[in-house]
Amino acid sequence: MSQYNAPIRDMQFVMRELAGLDEVMQLPGNEEVSADLVDAILEEADKFASGVLAPLNWTGDQEGAKWNNGEVATAPGWKDAYTQFAESGWTALPCDPEYGGQGLPKLLATAVMEMWKSANMAFSLCPMLTSGAIEALMLRGTDEQKNLYLPKMIAGEWTGTMNLTEPNAGSDLAAVRTKAEPQGDGTYKIFGQKIFITYGEHDLTDNIIHLVLARLPDAPEGVKGISLFVVPKFMVNADGSLGARNDVHCVSIEHKLGIHASPTAVLAFGDKGGAIGTLVGEPNRGLEYMFIMMNEARFAVGMEGLALSERSYQHALQYAKDRIQGTDAGVRGGPKVNILHHADVRRLLMNMKSKTEAMRALAYVVGAAFDKAHHHADEAVRAQNQAFVDLMIPVVKGWCTENSIDVTSDGVQVHGGMGFIEETGAAQHFRDSRITTIYEGTTAIQANDLIGRKIARENGATVGAVVKMMRAVEAEVAGVQDEAFAAIARALGKGIAAVEEAVAYILATYSQDIKAASVGSVPFLKLLGIVAGGWQMARAALVAKRKLEAGEGDAGFCKAKIVTARFYADHVLAQAGGLAYTVVNGAPGALELTEELF
Amino acid sequence: MSQYNAPIRDMQFVMRELAGLDEVMQLPGNEEVSADLVDAILEEADKFASGVLAPLNWTGDQEGAKWNNGEVATAPGWKDAYTQFAESGWTALPCDPEYGGQGLPKLLATAVMEMWKSANMAFSLCPMLTSGAIEALMLRGTDEQKNLYLPKMIAGEWTGTMNLTEPNAGSDLAAVRTKAEPQGDGTYKIFGQKIFITYGEHDLTDNIIHLVLARLPDAPEGVKGISLFVVPKFMVNADGSLGARNDVHCVSIEHKLGIHASPTAVLAFGDKGGAIGTLVGEPNRGLEYMFIMMNEARFAVGMEGLALSERSYQHALQYAKDRIQGTDAGVRGGPKVNILHHADVRRLLMNMKSKTEAMRALAYVVGAAFDKAHHHADEAVRAQNQAFVDLMIPVVKGWCTENSIDVTSDGVQVHGGMGFIEETGAAQHFRDSRITTIYEGTTAIQANDLIGRKIARENGATVGAVVKMMRAVEAEVAGVQDEAFAAIARALGKGIAAVEEAVAYILATYSQDIKAASVGSVPFLKLLGIVAGGWQMARAALVAKRKLEAGEGDAGFCKAKIVTARFYADHVLAQAGGLAYTVVNGAPGALELTEELF
Repeated sequence: MSQYNAPIRDMQFVMRELAGLDEVMQLPGNEEVSADLVDAILEEADKFASGVLAPLNWTGDQEGAKWNNGEVATAPGWKDAYTQFAESGWTALPCDPEYGGQGLPKLLATAVMEMWKSANMAFSLCPMLTSGAIEALMLRGTDEQKNLYLPKMIAGEWTGTMNLTEPNAGSDLAAVRTKAEPQGDGTYKIFGQKIFITYGEHDLTDNIIHLVLARLPDAPEGVKGISLFVVPKFMVNADGSLGARNDVHCVSIEHKLGIHASPTAVLAFGDKGGAIGTLVGEPNRGLEYMFIMMNEARFAVGMEGLALSERSYQHALQYAKDRIQGTDAGVRGGPKVNILHHADVRRLLMNMKSKTEAMRALAYVVGAAFDKAHHHADEAVRAQNQAFVDLMIPVVKGWCTENSIDVTSDGVQVHGGMGFIEETGAAQHFRDSRITTIYEGTTAIQANDLIGRKIARENGATVGAVVKMMRAVEAEVAGVQDEAFAAIARALGKGIAAVEEAVAYILATYSQDIKAASVGSVPFLKLLGIVAGGWQMARAALVAKRKLEAGEGDAGFCKAKIVTARFYADHVLAQAGGLAYTVVNGAPGALELTEELF
Repeated sequence: MSQYNAPIRDMQFVMRELAGLDEVMQLPGNEEVSADLVDAILEEADKFASGVLAPLNWTGDQEGAKWNNGEVATAPGWKDAYTQFAESGWTALPCDPEYGGQGLPKLLATAVMEMWKSANMAFSLCPMLTSGAIEALMLRGTDEQKNLYLPKMIAGEWTGTMNLTEPNAGSDLAAVRTKAEPQGDGTYKIFGQKIFITYGEHDLTDNIIHLVLARLPDAPEGVKGISLFVVPKFMVNADGSLGARNDVHCVSIEHKLGIHASPTAVLAFGDKGGAIGTLVGEPNRGLEYMFIMMNEARFAVGMEGLALSERSYQHALQYAKDRIQGTDAGVRGGPKVNILHHADVRRLLMNMKSKTEAMRALAYVVGAAFDKAHHHADEAVRAQNQAFVDLMIPVVKGWCTENSIDVTSDGVQVHGGMGFIEETGAAQHFRDSRITTIYEGTTAIQANDLIGRKIARENGATVGAVVKMMRAVEAEVAGVQDEAFAAIARALGKGIAAVEEAVAYILATYSQDIKAASVGSVPFLKLLGIVAGGWQMARAALVAKRKLEAGEGDAGFCKAKIVTARFYADHVLAQAGGLAYTVVNGAPGALELTEELF
């Protein structure tokens, strides 16, 4: 099975040099965060990720979670690992100190989250969903709800779930049909079926706290008639002890392409008289609350794209170094070499490496912007960072996850025939990645959010500001007298021009012909991701050059960063023009066929 | 489970209008082939594919082939289906009439092969490998070998395998270590282990005829010391009856990402004293024979890319028509619609449809060129067609299979969350497709063949001739006064220019710096595939327009063909420029890192 070691050197480089760790540490509330603390946490997290979680990744995939008569047994070793995870305080890392959290910066939590997801994505989904439930309660829970649930959830003693989807309400949550009947005592009885509930049932903890979207009897139709409820698996007494089993039951779990160890439950609420829940926040505002939490959740899924790419890259690189096959090109009868000598294996690995580094750079920069948006002393800076976060969330989610399918596929390809054999483990990353472009909003949903709410609605203000920052970096890169920098500047310049062209089209088209604009939305999302990644890689190359000239840091790492940025420019940024062409010209061909002509 | 129906209308259109079926039917040897016969065969094949093979596709995936103590049981229903397949004469379709084959044109066999592969790729591998073994024996077998094996193999009573790969001899067959010891009686004892042997063991037939690469004791090192042997599972008596069990045994079968129902065997030769085999052709020329057969085998795997794309498209289209979710864009509170109304679902389906049709057009045109290369009365025409086949084989293999990963991934995406659930069946196509870019030579190996043997070695003569044909089509398209045709001409023109630019780079670089040229080889292969597909789609659009104007044929089909060609131009051909940029500029970034800097 494949090893995993956190890419701490690159994580530190990105945090410090690109995402502004120093600035983040100086934000109000981060007084106790020091560079040493950050390094110590990264090191400890790597130990846990590589030592405990990574070895369970493949066995978890092969064993899977197992349903038996309403109970779900997680794979061998998972309960122990989870207990250790919670006891080590990892569940509390990003949470509010008021209820036992450590309140560490999002930027640091981002790097740590990357490790869990790389090491064992199926495992990481459990704390991820719990975080979502914690956030919902933090956001709108009553004091009673908070006191009852949050300390245990933050400590990892109980986990949480998000119950949104129903068989006929997937992307369209307006169609939710689950009912909530008020009992007159402040509680509600919930009736309905929810599907695709991640860790909806398991044996890791004594209780599971379900957050559930449902309709009150007098609720209006559509999105404005959905309320949010908290429904524990076991009722919780005022003293925190567990009471009766609630009427929520796991009917089955899904047989999936990947993340086999993460139980995806069908949950039946109220088959035996009604599941008891309490309302979170105000009636009919459940979907609105979900939207508030959406940035965090979508960012986390975007991180899965990055994390699976990193894992797959490490896996493929190790194989390429070990695997001896053939001789160097043009050297017939020469010595046998490892396959890293073969040009296309290098191309595949550089593709994986450069995309992964570009994703990390962009995601961490967005992570730091979360911190500034929440904690900066200056309101204008907070607003500016929030706008940047809002713009970039669909890009991080959509672009990183779409990338991960390609990158993990490249990882399989590097292995040749062995890549197709499950025991090799490369195929698992490919299978696991395939859900990431779907859940928490498909790429199309991200892309519609991007061109609609994030660009057209504000007439391109934030994306325009980002383009300006990109142009400034391009100018700086163009000023460096060096072949690699010239190549980066050239491709980045073309990429930015492609973004400008596409944005102009979207702004001109969105309000006139929303379908025409939407045809180009996913190509545009990819375009913006590619160019934003190139922008960050160009920044990284500039830092690396400065460090090399100053004789600071790790010279090999800095040299590699410049080469990697150049590769990214010539192989990835190169696609920008074609994507812009499709955004601008692609609508008629996509929209013209009537249904019967398909 | 998903239905499959052969896309006979498009198959007929491509065969007649693009691939020149009339001309093929007039070739010497095809005197008995008529348009009616072709249609009748397509119809019968569709019945078998959709009625017998397609329903076993998903159950075969879920059950898989099972190894038990050296024996392999195929999935329930497979033996019956195979027996029917053979008894209906399908194994004999493309084979030489001298030994019981039907000798039908490659073009027709291509369409029929597409159906088997779409309906049930794991099943289709059995006759495909048998064809390879038949071809090897036809090519270089002695009369005795031919008489002993061919009639039964062509009739489907026995199957065949190709034993090339060993644990340390994958892409590099020069490293083959299996030994053949002459026994002095014209037979040889074979000792060694072969891996990745498709249908190397199964229960479908009484005997299996293995073709095996091995080294004679005095063989030179490397590629020129490998001989080809025929090694039956059961010895065959002169009267055709079965004799003793031979010393070739299935040690295990692989646990794979896809094609679960196709047993991939590890075969041990000679563990109990030596497997008896006879030499095929001359000593030390085995690899040369493999190369002669390579075009057929690579073409067949390219067809898998097309076929899985078609199946995945049909599957996703049906889902999109059935699935009701959300309202039309911009129509809040409007009626619920099927997801084909949503712009990005359309984009995904048009992507799948247009790529699939482009692949079919190119592959069938190459199929017809096979026929002309073998049977045309004029030697110059034969040579010209052979050169075209040689150039296009790596493109059909590499481009169609790389496409199939993307197309089947799009097929999963159309299904949303249901796509990730195995019972939906969409994920199977995605898993099955992932082997096609690996076996029978990875995409990198195809791409090296393309830029080296097929382009640089003849200084670009054939590709230059193809570019001229493309330019002629572009000119014709540009002459049509119509918005769709203008769009096609524009994108095709840019695409051809990209091919010209990339070819010029390859010709200038290949002999100077083979690694630099090789970095661009896979991007170039994709580029040539995309533009060759666009060329064929442009031809199809011209034919469709002519038919519409003449009031011939199915007007809806012709209209859809023009729209599809336009979509392809704006969404797929649009990528050509970026790929050429990478071919020309991509080498330094890919080659510069030393191993320790990865």
